[in-house]
Amino acid sequence: MKLQLARGTRDYSPEEKIARQDLTKNLISVFERYGYAPLETPLLERMDVLAAKYAGGEAADVMKEVFKVQDQGGRELGLRFDLTVPLARYVGMNPTLKMPFKRYQIGKAYRDGPIKQGRYREFWQYDIDIVGCGTMQADAEIIRVVLAAFDTLGLDVEIKINNRKLLSAIIQAAGISKELSETVIITIDKLDKLGEKTVIKELLNKGFDKEEAQNVMKHLRLRTIEEYEALLPGNEGVQELKQLFSLLPKDERLVFMPSLARGLAYYTGPVFEVFSKELSVSLAGGGRYDDMIGNYLGGKQKVPATGIAFGFEPILEVLDQQRKIPLKKSRTQVYVIPIGNVDAAGVVEELRDDGINADVDLIGRGLTKNIKYADAYGIPYVLFVGEDELERREFKLRNLKTGKETTGTLQSLCGQLSLSW
Amino acid sequence: MKLQLARGTRDYSPEEKIARQDLTKNLISVFERYGYAPLETPLLERMDVLAAKYAGGEAADVMKEVFKVQDQGGRELGLRFDLTVPLARYVGMNPTLKMPFKRYQIGKAYRDGPIKQGRYREFWQYDIDIVGCGTMQADAEIIRVVLAAFDTLGLDVEIKINNRKLLSAIIQAAGISKELSETVIITIDKLDKLGEKTVIKELLNKGFDKEEAQNVMKHLRLRTIEEYEALLPGNEGVQELKQLFSLLPKDERLVFMPSLARGLAYYTGPVFEVFSKELSVSLAGGGRYDDMIGNYLGGKQKVPATGIAFGFEPILEVLDQQRKIPLKKSRTQVYVIPIGNVDAAGVVEELRDDGINADVDLIGRGLTKNIKYADAYGIPYVLFVGEDELERREFKLRNLKTGKETTGTLQSLCGQLSLSW
Repeated sequence: MKLQLARGTRDYSPEEKIARQDLTKNLISVFERYGYAPLETPLLERMDVLAAKYAGGEAADVMKEVFKVQDQGGRELGLRFDLTVPLARYVGMNPTLKMPFKRYQIGKAYRDGPIKQGRYREFWQYDIDIVGCGTMQADAEIIRVVLAAFDTLGLDVEIKINNRKLLSAIIQAAGISKELSETVIITIDKLDKLGEKTVIKELLNKGFDKEEAQNVMKHLRLRTIEEYEALLPGNEGVQELKQLFSLLPKDERLVFMPSLARGLAYYTGPVFEVFSKELSVSLAGGGRYDDMIGNYLGGKQKVPATGIAFGFEPILEVLDQQRKIPLKKSRTQVYVIPIGNVDAAGVVEELRDDGINADVDLIGRGLTKNIKYADAYGIPYVLFVGEDELERREFKLRNLKTGKETTGTLQSLCGQLSLSW
Repeated sequence: MKLQLARGTRDYSPEEKIARQDLTKNLISVFERYGYAPLETPLLERMDVLAAKYAGGEAADVMKEVFKVQDQGGRELGLRFDLTVPLARYVGMNPTLKMPFKRYQIGKAYRDGPIKQGRYREFWQYDIDIVGCGTMQADAEIIRVVLAAFDTLGLDVEIKINNRKLLSAIIQAAGISKELSETVIITIDKLDKLGEKTVIKELLNKGFDKEEAQNVMKHLRLRTIEEYEALLPGNEGVQELKQLFSLLPKDERLVFMPSLARGLAYYTGPVFEVFSKELSVSLAGGGRYDDMIGNYLGGKQKVPATGIAFGFEPILEVLDQQRKIPLKKSRTQVYVIPIGNVDAAGVVEELRDDGINADVDLIGRGLTKNIKYADAYGIPYVLFVGEDELERREFKLRNLKTGKETTGTLQSLCGQLSLSW
């Protein structure tokens, strides 16, 4: 048997995992500073939940990419493709939740699609959502969190902002019926990547005539919200965009982009997408989905919602390229090396009781090999424990980077270790 | 459509998730204090990796419980049933890893089996393992980590310890051939739960004769390691047990139990299982598996390994019963309430910039409703922001528990908030 990973999945080595832990800690601290509470839902969901027409939507590309699972009872299940549909299911099943419900969720999601750079079939997603607030205040807050998050990470980004109601109006103004606007939106979403020519071709392939396609393109060429207000007076999407920008700080990272659509069918209002300035990779995306949760509740209730998903893998890839995360190989502070046939277990336990991350040779290697081992794992200090040392209760601590050695009691050395950590 | 969870899965509400976060933080700090580094492997693995005879083992019950998945390329995949098999695969694929490799991994695992109290089909596991150390030093360290972990959690436990080599010798001493010992071991493992009579019946059902079954039972009735040494002189399992106990602190929580087997086929030496003293639920279990990784490497190399898996769900259930975790509904420190038509966004941002977890009314509710909302989420403080307050830059902070109010600048109030947090 050849040892292989499932295609599109990856291992995180200790150093990559430590980097992910640090990044996660940073993002959680931002989310909690803005009042979001953690939630966890299963990775396995019932297929009817995932495939509901107001969730993934049967027509959506994403449903073709769901990993299907069957349990022993013959129930059709699937691995979740995002964290938004499960949130809607959760809210639907917990009708006594106090609104607004602001939650963050960090978890893996699955799409059995093509594999590209920074794109896997099993990937981490970091989501924040506000459920139960229909005003632009909520969308503005989501964008503020995004700004704070990328400030914390030290990444240069651009946040493109649009509104689905504006996009629908543009399409209808081009003479295309409301029923067909969804398929047009899916094509338009690729404008930034593929260019006008290819998008027009795809629209023609989908059966639209040349005039319709060209009209859509023409209307997408305007640049300011004011121009769209003149083109489409009274349009709700335009009004929402004006309000949203008025609630946000003046920040050149916030950019209105009329062709931004975001693939999924469930968006109803503002949509946003975050791009890395240097690598033009999408790092986060989201928007308002006012109908999904209400529909899960049987359509009896309006439950507005908005949110954004951060993609961990592309963020880590950009951080990696910028080398802003120095990779740590271990969190161990000191490696204890017994000299000769000495029992160092007591010394190590004492260090640990003092809150020091300490490791010890378990296989009786010689001095040189032990030092090499500690160095290979990036452990900054080694402590030597011989018979003399045990008797005098004084030990030698060596800084592996500088070579400097200090002798002292465990307690005095511990102080040094905590300081340098 | 009726909204339902996939059977055997669960949601963690914010308060349950906060409890899990705290427990995870505690366990990670223990693991890192003992020198373990984090690793992450995918939840999806290739079926041939999971089903290899030195992993799950085709005969093992666990293989019947694997959730099967197929990708678009027709590859047979499965959801992992533990974190040990993926570790062996990881080590096999990374032959330059420096030994010993000590890692912890926290992740979900899946078994499509019967659902009981505290037992789910999707469940969290917390594993630590030492790869590349064949001596009892490693097993002793694993047990020390277990003691430290349950001390940290404040749970009363008993750790039952045995050795597979002893168990095999007991079975062979009863006249049963080596080839059949695996199936006997699976039955014996239930002795503690089902009692002698039922176990003997099951052995008879499996085709063993009365004498063989009774011999096995008789040999399992001895209590001390010394008695087994007399019964089976020179047995390696007995020698390992003696050495293991000599390396451990004298602790009445450590108990030798000759019938402990642990279900999986891959164990080769010491096995251990942790039980809650009050609820007699299994909270963790593991042991030595010296052959698995070497076999993944094509049998060309010996790679000894030992480790233990903590079950998060049963631990949380026991903690819950003891009410040792007070459930926190939110990590938000202060809820900002705008009075009248005031823009409080600047004030909230200032609090957040000072590192305070702050939330704010987004939907323009009245005073009473806002206070009720903050209280429902267990947020300890509310801050009132009216026009007067904004002008004077002095605000009123109310402690919702005591009703006590303090007036001051944001900065002075922030000091108070950090202290009380």
